[in-house]
This record gives sequence, C-alpha cells and structure tokens, in this order.
Amino acid sequence: MAENTFESLLVISAHAGDFVWRAGGAIALAAARGARVTVACLSFGERGESAKAWREGKKLDEIKQLRRGEAERAAEVLGADIRFLDAGDYPLVESPELVDSLVRIYRETTPTAVLTHTLVDPYNGDHPAAARMAMNARILAQAVGYDAPGDPLGAPPVFSFEPHQSEMSGFRPDVLLDITEVFDTKRDAMRCLGAQQHMWTYYEDLAARRGMQLERNAGPNLGVRQGTRSEAFVRHYPHVTDRLS
Amino acid sequence: MAENTFESLLVISAHAGDFVWRAGGAIALAAARGARVTVACLSFGERGESAKAWREGKKLDEIKQLRRGEAERAAEVLGADIRFLDAGDYPLVESPELVDSLVRIYRETTPTAVLTHTLVDPYNGDHPAAARMAMNARILAQAVGYDAPGDPLGAPPVFSFEPHQSEMSGFRPDVLLDITEVFDTKRDAMRCLGAQQHMWTYYEDLAARRGMQLERNAGPNLGVRQGTRSEAFVRHYPHVTDRLS
Amino acid sequence: MAENTFESLLVISAHAGDFVWRAGGAIALAAARGARVTVACLSFGERGESAKAWREGKKLDEIKQLRRGEAERAAEVLGADIRFLDAGDYPLVESPELVDSLVRIYRETTPTAVLTHTLVDPYNGDHPAAARMAMNARILAQAVGYDAPGDPLGAPPVFSFEPHQSEMSGFRPDVLLDITEVFDTKRDAMRCLGAQQHMWTYYEDLAARRGMQLERNAGPNLGVRQGTRSEAFVRHYPHVTDRLS
Amino acid sequence: MAENTFESLLVISAHAGDFVWRAGGAIALAAARGARVTVACLSFGERGESAKAWREGKKLDEIKQLRRGEAERAAEVLGADIRFLDAGDYPLVESPELVDSLVRIYRETTPTAVLTHTLVDPYNGDHPAAARMAMNARILAQAVGYDAPGDPLGAPPVFSFEPHQSEMSGFRPDVLLDITEVFDTKRDAMRCLGAQQHMWTYYEDLAARRGMQLERNAGPNLGVRQGTRSEAFVRHYPHVTDRLS
Amino acid sequence: MAENTFESLLVISAHAGDFVWRAGGAIALAAARGARVTVACLSFGERGESAKAWREGKKLDEIKQLRRGEAERAAEVLGADIRFLDAGDYPLVESPELVDSLVRIYRETTPTAVLTHTLVDPYNGDHPAAARMAMNARILAQAVGYDAPGDPLGAPPVFSFEPHQSEMSGFRPDVLLDITEVFDTKRDAMRCLGAQQHMWTYYEDLAARRGMQLERNAGPNLGVRQGTRSEAFVRHYPHVTDRLS
Amino acid sequence: MAENTFESLLVISAHAGDFVWRAGGAIALAAARGARVTVACLSFGERGESAKAWREGKKLDEIKQLRRGEAERAAEVLGADIRFLDAGDYPLVESPELVDSLVRIYRETTPTAVLTHTLVDPYNGDHPAAARMAMNARILAQAVGYDAPGDPLGAPPVFSFEPHQSEMSGFRPDVLLDITEVFDTKRDAMRCLGAQQHMWTYYEDLAARRGMQLERNAGPNLGVRQGTRSEAFVRHYPHVTDRLS
Repeated sequence: MAENTFESLLVISAHAGDFVWRAGGAIALAAARGARVTVACLSFGERGESAKAWREGKKLDEIKQLRRGEAERAAEVLGADIRFLDAGDYPLVESPELVDSLVRIYRETTPTAVLTHTLVDPYNGDHPAAARMAMNARILAQAVGYDAPGDPLGAPPVFSFEPHQSEMSGFRPDVLLDITEVFDTKRDAMRCLGAQQHMWTYYEDLAARRGMQLERNAGPNLGVRQGTRSEAFVRHYPHVTDRLS
Repeated sequence: MAENTFESLLVISAHAGDFVWRAGGAIALAAARGARVTVACLSFGERGESAKAWREGKKLDEIKQLRRGEAERAAEVLGADIRFLDAGDYPLVESPELVDSLVRIYRETTPTAVLTHTLVDPYNGDHPAAARMAMNARILAQAVGYDAPGDPLGAPPVFSFEPHQSEMSGFRPDVLLDITEVFDTKRDAMRCLGAQQHMWTYYEDLAARRGMQLERNAGPNLGVRQGTRSEAFVRHYPHVTDRLS
Repeated sequence: MAENTFESLLVISAHAGDFVWRAGGAIALAAARGARVTVACLSFGERGESAKAWREGKKLDEIKQLRRGEAERAAEVLGADIRFLDAGDYPLVESPELVDSLVRIYRETTPTAVLTHTLVDPYNGDHPAAARMAMNARILAQAVGYDAPGDPLGAPPVFSFEPHQSEMSGFRPDVLLDITEVFDTKRDAMRCLGAQQHMWTYYEDLAARRGMQLERNAGPNLGVRQGTRSEAFVRHYPHVTDRLS
Repeated sequence: MAENTFESLLVISAHAGDFVWRAGGAIALAAARGARVTVACLSFGERGESAKAWREGKKLDEIKQLRRGEAERAAEVLGADIRFLDAGDYPLVESPELVDSLVRIYRETTPTAVLTHTLVDPYNGDHPAAARMAMNARILAQAVGYDAPGDPLGAPPVFSFEPHQSEMSGFRPDVLLDITEVFDTKRDAMRCLGAQQHMWTYYEDLAARRGMQLERNAGPNLGVRQGTRSEAFVRHYPHVTDRLS
Repeated sequence: MAENTFESLLVISAHAGDFVWRAGGAIALAAARGARVTVACLSFGERGESAKAWREGKKLDEIKQLRRGEAERAAEVLGADIRFLDAGDYPLVESPELVDSLVRIYRETTPTAVLTHTLVDPYNGDHPAAARMAMNARILAQAVGYDAPGDPLGAPPVFSFEPHQSEMSGFRPDVLLDITEVFDTKRDAMRCLGAQQHMWTYYEDLAARRGMQLERNAGPNLGVRQGTRSEAFVRHYPHVTDRLS
Repeated sequence: MAENTFESLLVISAHAGDFVWRAGGAIALAAARGARVTVACLSFGERGESAKAWREGKKLDEIKQLRRGEAERAAEVLGADIRFLDAGDYPLVESPELVDSLVRIYRETTPTAVLTHTLVDPYNGDHPAAARMAMNARILAQAVGYDAPGDPLGAPPVFSFEPHQSEMSGFRPDVLLDITEVFDTKRDAMRCLGAQQHMWTYYEDLAARRGMQLERNAGPNLGVRQGTRSEAFVRHYPHVTDRLS
C-alpha cells in the first residue's frame, strides 16, 4: 500500500493518570520513532482517582494542580504533548461542547491512530464516557460539513487500552504491543504519579504478564526472548494491511 | 522484534474450491513475496459443492477427478502446493486420524500463518468441522510429547476466511487484506473452477465490495486509490506487533 | 411471491414427549389446515424422561413400549404421523448413521418447515444432540450429490421449540404462535402422556403465559381477546416474506 | 387471528437519504398495497451526508433546501408522506423534546409497523441516536398517562433497516423482504438523491445480493425465479403469527 | 472472612410498584432478619404504570397521591423505609442532580447489598435509566473526593431483579432466592397495589415457577420440599465467598 | 433452607496438574472443613503438559509414572483422594465409555459441588473436552433410568476454574473464593509438581492478583486485610440461596 510516513498518535484519557498506566508504552514507542503524540486529558482525576491527596486533607484546587503537574511530567518523560480540558470527573459528564473540543483536536493533530478507554467498565463510569466522546468526535471530524477548523479527518484506527479489571469489562485483547525496548521509560513515567503510588507495582507486573502472553502468541518468528514487556489493546475497526501476520 | 524472514502459509480447506474463493488473494500475495504456500484440501467437495457435475450425470469418481484437476490448476496459478486428504464431504467427518494427518502437515510446513474456515456456518457443516480440526491440530503440533515427525510447532496466527453468508455465520471482519496487486491472478484461479462457474462473478463483486470497505477504513495513510480489491478475515489470537496501525 | 400451497411440517424430537409439550400446538394447527405433519422421534425417552415408570419398577423394554404407546396416541390426537428411530437416550449419541436416517426422512417428507430442539440446553444433553443432527441432516439433504432416495431438499425454515428452562438455554423468542383455537387438542394430547403427568399443568400454564406475551406484542391489529394461548419459537434462518408485520 | 385491515407504516430516518437507500422497497411495497406510509426525517443530513454539496461550496441553508427537495421527490416516488423535524445532524442530539415530537407522530399515524436504524453503528453516531429515540417514543406513546393527543398506541413491530456496514454494526438479517416487484420504483427514488450519486450503484448491487440470499433461504415454496431483489431487516420484538413459515 | 453483622439493603425502584413485584420477597426476608431496608422510589409510576387510574379519569396529582399511598403501605408491610424522589416517569430522565441524590442515599444508608432494575428492557425505558443511575451513583459514592456527606462507600454487591419479560431483556438468573417463608408477606404487600391489580396473580404464579426452578437447581442439600417460592436475580459483580455452594 | 451438612467436592481435571494450579485452594479449603474431596484425573498430561520431561529424554511410561507420583503427592497435601482414568491426552478423546466412568464416580461420591475446566479454551482442546464430559456425566447421573450403581444424583452446582488465558477463554469471574487461610497448603501442593516448575511463581502471583480483586469487590463487610489470596470461578447454574450477599 502507498503509505505516507507521517505518524501522529492521539490519546484521549479520562483522568490524569490513565494514559500512563494503560498506554505509556505505546506512547513512548511512537515518540521514539519520531511520531507526534498528543494526550487529551479530559479531567485531572481530581475527585475519583486522587484518594491519597484527599485523605491528606488537600483541597480541590490543590489536587487539580498536583495531578496536572504529575501528568505534565509523565507526558514529558514519554515524549508527548498534553492538553487538559478540565471537564471535571466523578462524574465526567458528556456534552456537545466537550465533544466539539475533541473534534478540534482531531482536526488539528490529524492522528494516524487513536487510543482511548473501553466502552464498558463497571467499576468506573468516566472511562466509558470518555470512550464514547472520543469515538463520536472522530466521526464528526470526518464530515466536511462539520464546522471546525482544518480538513476533514481520514479514518484513523481506534484502540481501547486496558481497563483495570479486564474480564469484567469484556476486554479480550486483540493486539499485544511489544514495549520491551521502552519499558524503562514507561516505568519512569509511572513514577511521576505520586498520587497513585500503589499502582506502580501493579502495572509493572501487568506489563510482564502481558509480555508472557505475547511470547505465547508470538508465533515462530519471535526470536528467543526473556523479559518481554507488553501492553494489550482492543481494536475497534478492521485492520487494513497487505500481510497476514 | 527480532523476526526471521521465513514465511510459510498453510491453508486448510474443506472442499476443492474454498481456498480459491475465500483466500486466493492471500495465497497469491504471499506467493508473490516468495513465501511457501501449502493448501491442505480435506475433500474434493465431490458431493456438496459439485451440483453441476451431478446434474450432468457424472459419477462420484469422475467428479472427484474433475474437482482435483480444477483445484490443482487453481493452486498452480496462485503459486501454492496442494495436498488432497480425500476424507469425503457432506458430511466431512472429524476423526483423530484426520487431525493427526494435519498435525504432520503442520510439523512439516512450519507455517508462519494459518488460514481456514469459520467455526460457525449454519449453511454448511463441513466448514466448521474443517476449522475445528485445523485448530485442534495446530495445538497438538505444539506439544513436544505429540508423536509425529518434526519439531514442536510455534504459535502461528490463525485466520478464518470469509464464509458465503457472513452475517449469519457471525463473521465480523478483523482484517481487510489489500489484494489489489494480485487480483488478476485470483481471477485467473477462480476461472479454473468450471464446476462452480456461478461463483465467479459473485466473488469478483465481493472483492470489490471488501475493497470499498478497506478504503473506508484505511485511515489517512492510504494514498488515493481506485479499484481496490480486498479479502476479509477474522483473527483468532491477539495480533503481536510493535506498532499500532 | 409465487407460492405453492403444499405444506409439510417435520418435527424432530429427542424423546417421546418433547414434541407434545413443546410443539403440540404448532402440530395441531398445521394439521388442522390440512398440512402433512411427521414426527421423527429419536428415542422413547426411556431412561431420561420416564422416572415415574422406573420408580414403579418397570423394565427397560416395558418402558419403551409404554412411552411408544403414549406418543402414538398423542400424535394421533394432534393429527401427525410418527416414526421411532429407537436410537437410545441418556445419552442420545450422534452418529453418521442416525443423521443419514434423518436425511432420508427429509427427502421423503419434503418439509416446508422444520421444528426441533435448541442448540443449547445445560439441563439435557440429548436435546442439543437432536438439534445438531436435525440441522446437519437438513443441509446434507439439500445436496444433489448426497446418496439417498428423492430429490434434493429446498431450504425449509427451521425453528427451535421452547426448552424447559428458557433463559438458561439462551432461548429468546423470535416467534409467538397463536395456538388458541387448537389448545384443547394440545391439552388432550398432553393427557396421553401418563408417564409425565407432573408436566400437564406446567405446560398449560406456560401456554397461557406465552399467550399473555403474545397479546403484549400483538400490535394494534389483534382484536381484543381473552385467554390467548401461544407457543414460542426461535428462528434459525431469515424470514422470507413480502410483508413486514 | 382477528386482524383489521388498516395498514400504516412509520419510517424514522436520521437523515434525508436513509429511508430511501435502506427502506425504499419496503415503503413502495406497502404503498402499493394501499398502506399509509409516513417518513419522519429527523434531519436533512446537511452536515454529515452531503459531502458533495459542501465540496461544491454550497452554504448550510442551501444544502438543507437541496436535501429537503431531494427527499420530498423521493418520498413522492415511493408513495410516502414525509415530515422534516430539522433537528440538526452530526451530531443528532437526543432530547426529550424531539422524543415528544415523535410520540405525537406515533399517536397520529397509529403505525402497524415501524422502521428505523440499528442501535449500533460504529461509523455513524446519528443512526443509533435516531433508533433510540424511535424506540423510546414508541413506548411512551403506549402509555395512557402520557400527555399527547390521540389514543394510546398498541404494540406495532419494530424493524431495523440495514446499516452501511452490516457486520460491523452487528446486523444479522432476521427478515428478507421480497421487493422485486417494486424495485424499479426504488431505483427511481434513489435517483432523486443527486447529492449522494455514488450510492446508486452500491444499493442496486446490495438489492441483488440480498435477493440472492432470499432465494437461498426461500424454502421449497418459492417458485423458480431470477433477478429477485430484497431488503434485509432485523426484528426487535417477537413475530406474532398463526403460521410458522 | 471477618464479617461484621450489620446488614442494610438498598432498593432503587423506577416506579412505585416495581420494588414490590420484583423484590418484595428479598426485602421481607432481609427485614425479617433485622436488616435495615431502604427503598428509593424514583417516581410514582404516575404516567406509565397507572393505566387503570387514568382510565377512571383521575388527574395527575391524584394519581401520584394514590400511588404514593399504595407504595407506603406496601413498604410498611414488607418492613422497609421508603423515600420518593418524585423525578417523573415516562420518561424518567437521567440527570446529574438525580444521581447526586442517590449518592447521598448510598452514603447515608451504607448498603451491604443493592437491588435495582436490569440495564436492558425493550419494553420500558425507565427501568434501564433507573439501573444506570443506581450503578453510577454507587461508583461515585465510593470516591473520597465526591462532595457529599458521609464516608466513602465500600463495594456492596448489586443485583438486578426480574423484568417483566425476562428473555427479551437478556435476564439469565444468576441467583434464586428462597422466599418461601416470607411469601405471605409479599402477597400482602402486592395486594396494597390496587392500581395494578392485574399483576397480583401474575407475580404469585411467577414466584411458584421460580420456586420450581430453585428446587430443580438446589442440589442434594435441599430437604424435600413442596411449594417453594423464589425470586430471581442477576449479579453484577463477582460473588465474594469462602465456600463454593 | 433445610440443609444437610454432608459436603463432598468432586474435581474433574483433564491433566495431572490442572486441579492443583486452578483449584488447589478450593480443595484445601473444603478438606480443612472436613469435606470429602475427590479428584478425577482424566489423563496424566503426559504428552501435552510435560515438556520438560520430554526434553530430558524420558519415555512415555516414565513420564506417566512421574506425573502420577507428583499428582498423588499434591492431592495428599491438599487433603483429596485422587483417581486416574488414564484416558490419554493431546488429544483427550471424548467417548461414551469415559463419560460412563464419570457417571459412576458421581453416583459414588454424591458431590455437593463440582469443579472442572471451562467450555472454551482456544489454547488447549483437552480442557473443553473434559468440561463437556464432566457436565454431560452429571446430567446422566441424575436419571433414575441410567444403568449405574447408586442413587440418582441431585443437582450439585458446577463451577469452572480459571484457564491459563482468561480473557481469550471468555472467563468472566462469577465467584472469588477467599483461600488466604489455606494458601500455604496450596503453595506446598504446587511445589510437588516438579514437571511444571515454571508455573509456581505464575500461580502464586495470580492468587495475589485475584486476592486484590476480591478486596476490591468485597463490599463493606470484609474487615481490613492484607495479603488476601483468591481463586476465581465461573458458575454454570443459578446460585440457590436464602441471602443476597
């Protein structure tokens, strides 16, 4: 297939930490290849994912500031630009205005791939809300008649990254991404997130477990390896390719 | 990922024509890249997919001979080796012996990708039977303790090719393979199948329709194109990759 | 659509009672319209559905004779021919020979509609086994190359009748058949089945409950009614029609 | 069943063209039988489905006028009344007010069958939004306590017409409607839609393909036919009938 | 497991009658054990489930008063506190304010189990709306950062009670609750609901039918029983236990 | 509910190690409560799950002996009786004879709960084969007319234990069993399985991960805990209970 070589990754994250835990490897890998990576952070996770800060008695504005700083540092480590839409969390309320903001980001960044949450998560209502808005905005951005700056979007593939409780969210991995070579970067980015320190080990272990699964599914063409690290994704549209592998 | 460059495609087909209609493009594409392609044809489709010959008054042996000849010519056009297991059709009966024959073919050809039928087809019981045997044999071939020549198999990806009635068979395309550049070869191969002449146009149209779908899903990186041809597949195991695209 | 008026109903039943409880109304309705109705009874339900007789100390042959007699009387009341394949139950074992017998019945009776069990029933393994054989035999009977007397079969619609525990068997009714006018006949037929007397009330109640559901779904065109009786079915292939209703 | 003979078809369409491509045959067939047919068009498809007009530099109001004119002509050809709710598209935003407008149309037209979009369409968010509103309004219209003119609605059956990408939208046909005798009318109606000229051939081909599928599923009672044309539908509530066919 | 013995049941009901028909046994059983039981009644069912009163010519306010009285009496019989949120029905419109009210009830009552509607009900849009709000509010109540009185909620299990048309709502029972010993109480509570008198017998029959199903699934440890009465539920989160039974 | 206190657990395992990795905690827990626990081991896993021994050059008989010894020691540590049916693995072939053997074990052990594999496992065909036989044998054992010693079985609940790749096998946990207090015993039993040493750490980690999930789902009634260990199960029949928890 005639491909151009421009690569732009757009990651739409409900809260300040999600893009790191769930897609930090994918981001670092793309950035390392020279891709443009943009994280659209819909909220700071100030109410729903900052329990430690609340228990320490911090105020809402302090917590938002704290989470923003953490997320900025993590994005920098991963090699991504980050934008905060400050839409509030718990609940993250869907609105035409918020979707419109996402359309404008799509038009501006012209992603070649999009990452977001799953459409189902019985443990967190903000995650599906973010995913629905991400997917609706992508469709709107494709219409020449939609009133926003920029050209109509093409049809970039969309991937859901892994939710916290995979089976309960109907998450059956379609793609296992090999992030071994950038795993140290992901670990460094995770350690920027002091507000959720209890997650560090959990997501290190998950990367190793998905790595073992990758080895189990890698076919005869993966050289012998040890210590593979991986992130899992679900694909929403057919994979367009010129090779079955 | 450290990949070796050997490519071997194994296509497990219930009847003599299936591999042509449903995977002829994938075969021609791989062969054109220099891959080894092997078609394991479980039956000749002598009872279930040779209505024209029966109506012309031909006998069973003649029909088997006829379909064998057609399949051999089609395989040659596509660039594949073909083997006939002559297991009978309508019904194709599953047996440990037939599965064992497939294990031996797996061990010998060491496929890097496997193509077969869907596990569901309410219009044809032989197709799911072939798919179940193909998938079971692949698992057995992976075990060092399985008593058959050759080394234990790796974990080649498995794809179901498209059944005749996609929605009724639960076929939701995961992969759209661009076969434009080899479509003339597929057309030539289809025309070797005189016993099923009514299918020629149907599958030419399908290739164009899947081609339009490919363009609709191709994202911003596909150059402007006309007349794309495609085959659709469903993937059974996670896609192992180092790039989300 | 150009329709011919011949109507032939084929009911494939795992045990001697199933066709009465689950499809007695459909049978009586078709027979009352002058249709040919054939019941193919794969076993007598001698082991799995004759607990009362076993508890009374009867022997296997006596029980088979008893259930045969009951089923013959019920079929006569409903207006159907009945054939016993005496294949044994608990378990009803699938075999190519048994499927071949069904192919021959298909070819002979040329059904315009087929009724059988559901493909899922976690409380009874014989029911799905009967359904799989019924559906496979129908496909084989369609092939001109299949070696059995008679012409190749057309494509009669197939319906699953209601299992004992509907939700657990994934039974979501597609069709509610109004059996009000023949319900007395069905009741009479049920009362022929002395070996399963505990079911009489259960299936009378079910007919009333499905009747209420029919009224709830009947749209504006059903006249005001009371005491509607119904049987529920799941359809396996698309409904071919010239009117959406 | 005691049926009255009044027939009223209500088609709820997100955009100006949808009712033609997806249900033009069903509309023409009902109209030809003397049924009342009403199309409720929620938007003109002015932003999302008028790419050609935007590319030609037309303005929003011009485009709405253009699409309205096309839709009116197509409806006239098919024999339907059409009403425009002008609710805007891309996105079509669900609201209690819009649902209330639909309730009033239900109460006024007292449909005996309802056609609308699928509840899933990953390529177009307006389609599921229209379907959800169509289905919710139907339920509200049934309540005697709902404050709108007219009598409480009965329970007309609801059908989803075919989306553009059937498998990806989980569209498994339940009903194949024979539209052969009105296909010329549907073709004429499609040709009224100059803004979407690229769809004409696509939907002519689809009608032929669904026609072939109809023949394959028509059972032994369809006379020998050539050139059957069909539209496919999914049924949302059980089919109430007095005959299994 | 270290358990404390406090038991608090929260039932979130769309309309005034739902909690009685669908969960009256569960409520009476918990109350009989000394549990605190709270019913949050989102509407009175004044429009959608009071057809008899509308047909008698009553006005909206009268009907709301009537249904409130009935619900209060039923709750008293069952042993529950009841609160009316008076949010309107047909449609019951989801809003952040209504969800916030539920969060406050969660925080105040600290339920150890939650009962609500199913997430799917093609016959009633208010039921899924209530279920979505019930589930979202539970998640919000768990967040320390959510601004409402009380401590963050734990993770009480959530159960859907049985919808009117189980199969059409995808209701596959996970739990069969033995309500035999409190069934007289449930019957008395149902009889408080004069506005829906046609339901009394229906739900008495359902309790007997679910009772028979319970006996069928009860394993070898249920003593011989007659006249078991049961209610069915679907569980939304894994059952945490120290014994498989 | 009137319960008798006899407890008997039957575990049907395809290979020698499965019952330890996947259900060792459940077994140890039941045994510690004084329950009778019986493991029916259909094969030794001699071909499919003994790669290390094959690579060391051992012969088939040696390997079977080796795996038998390991399994006996593990069963003893857990407190279970173990029986070997020596039916062969890779493939484990279903047969009426093998099912009959299981019926006899059911009749003899009269289990109050049954554990076996999942019905789906795309990585191992023996696991679903074992599950199908386990479930079919349970149904046969319930029939008074089935010719085997002992009384007809009741209806013990059936649970699938966790497969190696949960999401790919459609394993969505219904039950999280708290095995913390017997986890040391499970660890000791795992260490008896020298042939699969690479699994020890994997299943220790899994127990901790499922333990964290248990804490997340445990509701407000679980005391504060650290280091919870758990096993996950899927339930096949409704849970019969007198308390929603």
